[in-house]
Parts: sequence; structure tokens; C-alpha cells
Amino acid sequence: MEALRVIGVDVGGTKTLAAVVDRHGEIEQDVVHSTDISSQDALLAGLDAIVEELRDGREIAALGFGIPSRVDQRSGRAVASVNIPLAGVDFRDRMRERHGVPVGIDNDANAATIGEWHAGAARGARYVVMLTLGTGVGGGLILDGRPYRGATGVGAELGHIVIGLDGPPCGCGGHGHLESYAAGPVADRAARELYGNGSDGHELVERGRKGEPEAVEALAEIGRRLGTGIASFVNVFEPELVVVGGGFGTAGELLLGPAREVLAREGLEPARDTVRVVPAQLGFHAGVIGAGMIAFEALDAEP
Amino acid sequence: MEALRVIGVDVGGTKTLAAVVDRHGEIEQDVVHSTDISSQDALLAGLDAIVEELRDGREIAALGFGIPSRVDQRSGRAVASVNIPLAGVDFRDRMRERHGVPVGIDNDANAATIGEWHAGAARGARYVVMLTLGTGVGGGLILDGRPYRGATGVGAELGHIVIGLDGPPCGCGGHGHLESYAAGPVADRAARELYGNGSDGHELVERGRKGEPEAVEALAEIGRRLGTGIASFVNVFEPELVVVGGGFGTAGELLLGPAREVLAREGLEPARDTVRVVPAQLGFHAGVIGAGMIAFEALDAEP
Repeated sequence: MEALRVIGVDVGGTKTLAAVVDRHGEIEQDVVHSTDISSQDALLAGLDAIVEELRDGREIAALGFGIPSRVDQRSGRAVASVNIPLAGVDFRDRMRERHGVPVGIDNDANAATIGEWHAGAARGARYVVMLTLGTGVGGGLILDGRPYRGATGVGAELGHIVIGLDGPPCGCGGHGHLESYAAGPVADRAARELYGNGSDGHELVERGRKGEPEAVEALAEIGRRLGTGIASFVNVFEPELVVVGGGFGTAGELLLGPAREVLAREGLEPARDTVRVVPAQLGFHAGVIGAGMIAFEALDAEP
Repeated sequence: MEALRVIGVDVGGTKTLAAVVDRHGEIEQDVVHSTDISSQDALLAGLDAIVEELRDGREIAALGFGIPSRVDQRSGRAVASVNIPLAGVDFRDRMRERHGVPVGIDNDANAATIGEWHAGAARGARYVVMLTLGTGVGGGLILDGRPYRGATGVGAELGHIVIGLDGPPCGCGGHGHLESYAAGPVADRAARELYGNGSDGHELVERGRKGEPEAVEALAEIGRRLGTGIASFVNVFEPELVVVGGGFGTAGELLLGPAREVLAREGLEPARDTVRVVPAQLGFHAGVIGAGMIAFEALDAEP
């Protein structure tokens, strides 16, 4: 069993990463290509090509895909997607027929969570809440030692809890969702207010790291909003760990310090005192490692 | 197996219910006594007495307790309680030694959830969120066909998600928690504002049922807050069902109608459209039936 290898594929709107990984989440070889989003057929052909390139005569036991899509786990269907042209496709069946091995699929946020759980910040934990701060706020859950996916597979949209009644509009059409307070674009907006239209969240984080008080405070404000969401999740799940990742999550302690202060106020004991709030460890590799673990899940589920 | 009987005990601050139940959650016989809260010893002696009274020579396979306490499932300890003098007690071991059968324990909100799941509004579902509206807002989760308890057993404090940033104080010390917007005392307060100091939530609900516009609107406002919390849970869990119970939950559609309107706005598709938001069915029997099911859980976990 130890020698088995799978391929994990992390499909993004700009780039697609693929890697040969083992059961421990170790990457043996990886490759990255631009995602061809000119059409659905082109996208699928590009995914086939990246798999075949990596496979290259090697024995591969299964495939796993993390896709920026709403997935129906019952049918293996990609129902709808953001940023890529993939909708109403029997993705799992198609990939299985095309490549002749078991195939697992999940949305990209769940894949990243599974990656951090197997090989990153949440290794060994059984109860994990992960939040990824990027263009939006994504998330994933490991509950009682298993990835949580909801009744059909759209579970764990953690960015869409309401934390502010009648709050600012969210991209999803709602109001006051965690995403509308703590995603990357909120930092971009704060940066523009402080430093003019040419600025963005990267500059804000950079200035924060240098200790510039305005930047530190702007990030702390976002961190406190993040902490409000984290406290809610801690009260609901009593997790061992909350892992914060994603591009904007690299702001690290500038967000997590203030977040912990709010957790101390809004969290219930004992969970608020026992939980650890930590940064993700795998960076952009989390998704592809998680996709590999999803491949192993599919393999192990075979009769 | 079908003939097995257990005793479930639902311990409240005022009354304790106990019942002989079968695997289907059918109550064969039940009894209710005042809870003796004069001391911890008196409380435990009272629980022994109610069990022995019901047992009365009958063959009983296990005991289950729903207690208003923070439970550590690893040790079976009642760590702390509200409204009853029970703290730092190895409750599960003590009851097992005293009564000589397997014993399961859980907090009262989880017990009520398990009751509605086995024999009430959530029968047959695998993904359930239950909210109980009373003095506080309690809750429980059935995820992937199993009760969710968190890392040590304090999981699913659903009343303590933040829905209003910097909102009104919550009994737990936090701010803007769902409980501070949707528990029974909020209805009491609204009633006093409308009808004077002698009024309360019961009167508000009664007037609402008669269609008095002021009462209907006051309850709708609470229902919209409830709906904000429900939408958050729907986005996180993609449940099949949200069940609303508890004493104040009997306001039913006066709360649930407005709650569904908010769910339609704040929920993500497809979960917001597939989930059903329904009233609980078992009333005050939910807890004792759930306690019985927890007894069967303990029995089935025996080697």
C-alpha cells in the first residue's frame, strides 16, 4: 500500500497545479500550467493533458480534483463554477472513463482543508475549521476525523455566515457575511483609503509588517471581524484547531492576534481556551495535496 | 434486540422526566418529579430514585441522561451546569456503578435534538440543525447520520454564533449572539414594551395568533433574527432540515415565516432552496426520548 501514488489536480481560474503524491501527502513531482478557460471542452482537454503529462508511464492508482465549483457528491457532477467554464458536467464519471482509475472530486476550499489536515498545520487533529482568505472567504471542516461535505456536497461555505445584521453587501447577494468583512478586497479598499488609488492589500500588509500604525490598525480591524467569525465557529464546533490560509491569510499575526482577542471575548469556555488559531503551512500547495488525498479517498471507497 | 428497553432521564432545573423507551423512541411508561436542587447529593439521590421507581423489577438494558450541563464525553464527567447543583462529577461512572448497566450522557439540547431525529420532526434525515428557543437558544446537530458533539463534548452551542457585530450583551458574556436576539426573554421584553410590565412572551404569542398587528410584527422581527442564524447554519451545513423547538418555539409560523424570508435572502443556493425549516414535533418529550436513544448508543458501544 505504501508504494501507491495518485495524481492530485488543483484547478484555479488562472493556473492549474497537478502533482504525484503519496499517502502521506508527499509530493513526488509537480507541474503547473495556465488554465485554458476559453471553453468547457478546452478546459477538460487541458486537464486531461496535465494528467497524462504527469502520468507518463508511471503507475497511478487514482485521480483527485479540487475544482472551484459547486459539486454534487452523489452524482459526481460539477453543477456550477466560479472563474472557469464548467457547469452541468458529470465530471467524476468523465474523468474515470477517460483515465481508467478511480476519481474523487471536491471543491477547492475543501481540498485545501484536507491538504492542511493530512500534511500541514492541522496534521493529526480530528476537529478542524479552516478559513481561506482570498478574493472571497472559503472554508472547510474536518469533523470527528472526516471531511464534512453537507447533504449533497456543497457544505461548509464558512465565508457566508452572517456576522453583521444588515451589514455590507456580499458577493453572493447576502448582507453582512464574514466574506464581506474579511476577504482580500476589504484590505484593498482599506489600502486605497489610506494610500490612494494605486495601493492595494499587498501594500497594506507590507506596511503593517514594518509596523506602520495606520496599516496595523486597518489590518487589526479586519482581524477582529475575522475573530468574530472564528468565535462563532469555535462555539459551534469546539474544534481543536482553526487554520487560516489563503493569499490574504499570509498577513498572519497582523490578523490572528486581533482575532484571538475577539475570540477570548465571544467564545465560550472551555472551547475558546483550548482551541488554537494558527496560520496554514502549505501555502498554494494545500489544494493539490488535498486533491491527492481525495484521490486516495476515492480509491479506498472502491469495493 | 427489538424487545430491549432502556430508561431515558431528562433533567431540568425544575422538573425531571424519565421514561422507559424502546429502540423506536416509543415511550412505554413515563414519570415526572420535581428536581431536588437543594444539593448535589440530593439531586443525585433524586435521580437514583426516579430510575428505580421506573425500573421496578423490569429488565432495563441501559440508562441515558440529558443534563443541563457541560459534559466531557471522554471521561463522562459533568463539568459544570446551569440551574442544577452538578459540577465536577464523574456522572457516567457513578450512574453505571449505582445501577449496573451501561450509561450514556449528553447535554439537554443534544438530547432533544436526538429525540426529534429518532422519533420526531427529523425522523429519517441525516443532516439536521435543531434550535431550541427557551430561556436561551440551545441547539444540536445531526451530521452525516450521527450526533455531533465536538472534540470533548461541548459542541454545537448554536445559540452563540455572533449575528450582530457589537450587538446586545448575551448571557454568556458575549455580544450580538443569536441567543440575545431570539430567545424567550426577547419576546418578554417586546411584550412589556407593548403591553406594560405585567405582560410577557406568552401574551405576545397569544395576541400574535389572534392576528394583532403589533404582536405579529414584534414576533416577525424576532423571527427575522432567527432566520439570520438559520441562514448561517444552512450555508455552513447544507442540512436537509432545520427544526425549531423549545417553549418559545411553539410560536411556530409567527417566527418561521419571517425566518424563511431572511433565509431566502441570506442563504446560498441550492441549500437555501432544498432545506426545510419546520417546527419540532415532540414538545417536552423530545429530551426524554433523546436520552433513551443515548442509552441505546451507550449499549451499542459496549464491547
